[in-house]
Amino acid sequence: MSEQRTELEKLGEFGLIDHLTQNFTTKNKRTILGVGDDAAVLALSKNESQLISTDMLIEGVHFNLMYMPLKHLGYKAVATNVSDICAMNGIAEQITVSIAVSNRFPVEALEELYDGINTACKHYNVDLIGGDTSSSLSGLTLSITVLGRAENDVITYRTGAKQHDLVVVTGDLGAAYVGLQLLEREKEVYNANPNIQPDLDGHDYIIERQLKPEARVDIIKFLKDLGVIPTSMIDISDGLASEVLHLCKSSKVGCQIYDEKVPIDGQTSMTAIEFNLDPNTCAMNGGEDYELLFTISQSDYDKIKGNPHMTVIGHITDKKNGSYYVDKQGAAIELKAQGWSHFD
Amino acid sequence: MSEQRTELEKLGEFGLIDHLTQNFTTKNKRTILGVGDDAAVLALSKNESQLISTDMLIEGVHFNLMYMPLKHLGYKAVATNVSDICAMNGIAEQITVSIAVSNRFPVEALEELYDGINTACKHYNVDLIGGDTSSSLSGLTLSITVLGRAENDVITYRTGAKQHDLVVVTGDLGAAYVGLQLLEREKEVYNANPNIQPDLDGHDYIIERQLKPEARVDIIKFLKDLGVIPTSMIDISDGLASEVLHLCKSSKVGCQIYDEKVPIDGQTSMTAIEFNLDPNTCAMNGGEDYELLFTISQSDYDKIKGNPHMTVIGHITDKKNGSYYVDKQGAAIELKAQGWSHFD
Repeated sequence: MSEQRTELEKLGEFGLIDHLTQNFTTKNKRTILGVGDDAAVLALSKNESQLISTDMLIEGVHFNLMYMPLKHLGYKAVATNVSDICAMNGIAEQITVSIAVSNRFPVEALEELYDGINTACKHYNVDLIGGDTSSSLSGLTLSITVLGRAENDVITYRTGAKQHDLVVVTGDLGAAYVGLQLLEREKEVYNANPNIQPDLDGHDYIIERQLKPEARVDIIKFLKDLGVIPTSMIDISDGLASEVLHLCKSSKVGCQIYDEKVPIDGQTSMTAIEFNLDPNTCAMNGGEDYELLFTISQSDYDKIKGNPHMTVIGHITDKKNGSYYVDKQGAAIELKAQGWSHFD
Repeated sequence: MSEQRTELEKLGEFGLIDHLTQNFTTKNKRTILGVGDDAAVLALSKNESQLISTDMLIEGVHFNLMYMPLKHLGYKAVATNVSDICAMNGIAEQITVSIAVSNRFPVEALEELYDGINTACKHYNVDLIGGDTSSSLSGLTLSITVLGRAENDVITYRTGAKQHDLVVVTGDLGAAYVGLQLLEREKEVYNANPNIQPDLDGHDYIIERQLKPEARVDIIKFLKDLGVIPTSMIDISDGLASEVLHLCKSSKVGCQIYDEKVPIDGQTSMTAIEFNLDPNTCAMNGGEDYELLFTISQSDYDKIKGNPHMTVIGHITDKKNGSYYVDKQGAAIELKAQGWSHFD
């Protein structure tokens, strides 16, 4: 090992992946796309390709078992992986699940986890086809690989956004983040006095968005039915700002996002304000919403107009114009990713 | 969570996987085989299938960075996954690599790791197509998924061994385990006095077998060239005894293995004796050899006879006869898996 020491946080998660994989080349003719999008793409048949994505979830980094029941964790782990296949405009079909667990977990705890995994597999019509089970020295680690497929002419990469395209998001944003704040607060209250029951009344929606997010497989079907093929797509795991920047960087374009267009549920707004948080900041930087962010050609606008699941939040500009969001006062502010960086 | 508490070690690694996945069913028509063999099998085309396997490697459980250089770890992680595809008589083509690392690792350490991964990818003609990078609270965790393919009529499952088939192993066994004993001893010596240099002279072979095992992709080519399709196959990661029992259980047969036929390298034997270990016990229970264990029809014997890479070590019997090894004195002893159980 060389004498030099560069700290991981200097590169950040995405910079680190890019850095470590820069010398890799692909050699097999079936490999269409390797590292760099929501999923890798392998040739399957003349008309179809296979999509592959993988995720690792670490206790204490990605989840806290104090407020995340194991059954929900299992469900969420599958849903978030299925979401990566949705982000390519594909259908998930198989997963592998590997777990490493310390002896602090009894078999019954893992039964709960796999019950959640099984519930999600049934819901998303996904087959569990393999995995590995090992002991760990600390806590629980999950590693999931998901396999899916899509017709070649509908696969949607991060790279296809073009100037004048419309920027669309599904559902509403910020709820998962505000739900997390609420769960964190109740954890603190419980730690201070275990006799006080958590006060989660009237917050069902934001808590469900945090504990049991769904992959937007329904949107993939809508898009097909509407005859819309997005020009680019990504799923929102790290916060809208971060994902918009990913799309713009990959597509070599700029964008203008309108703060007031970003869809936020009433419960999200109210709870955010209760926590002295700006609801829009929660939506822009909160993460874990697992909604889809995509761009469409303006000529497709009529097809999605009025659709309650899709909101146009801005448009794509030339790269030289940069990436901006326009706040309610009309000021254009440069977009910066403040998404989760798990090396901070 | 229920009140009952069943400790993980009660089920063991393989029992736990079986237990947790017993309620899962597969639904997609492309899914040919899910959990239960070295790799899952998905339909690819009329003549070919895809093979998928996944492995998790945990610092302190599966490897010790005190004597395992990161470059070797990267190489070994790829090789052992490629070996799972070999065990299905297939060719590995793609891998995903996810890592979780604590801040104790600088970027330069991960460069070493990925250098080893890249070297193995080039050697095995495998494409890195994705992965995930995350922080961890303790040490290094690697999760690798490998994808490969094989023609449908050569895919070899664990289930096909038939009475009277010959049991064959490739290469020689026990070296990786004895190599590990040597590295452990030198670690202790170093811990006691860091000024003493490790004494590894004359042990290159067994150390290389531990630190840089190879997947037997050459055997897959040999089998093809020889026109031999094994009736069943598995790779030897947990020790010969454990793998023989896996094959017999999956194929619903018994077997008779001859102790004196088990191939052991001279350096392995000598070092084992130095450590007061029985070389045959090291071969039977040591693990991490990543050789292939397979069964062939007696009619194929002439095709492999005299091949320096393959040794017939026994034959398959009726299930009711049980699984035995016959020691040098001719005593038949029931086979028991004493392979690595990472829940012990």
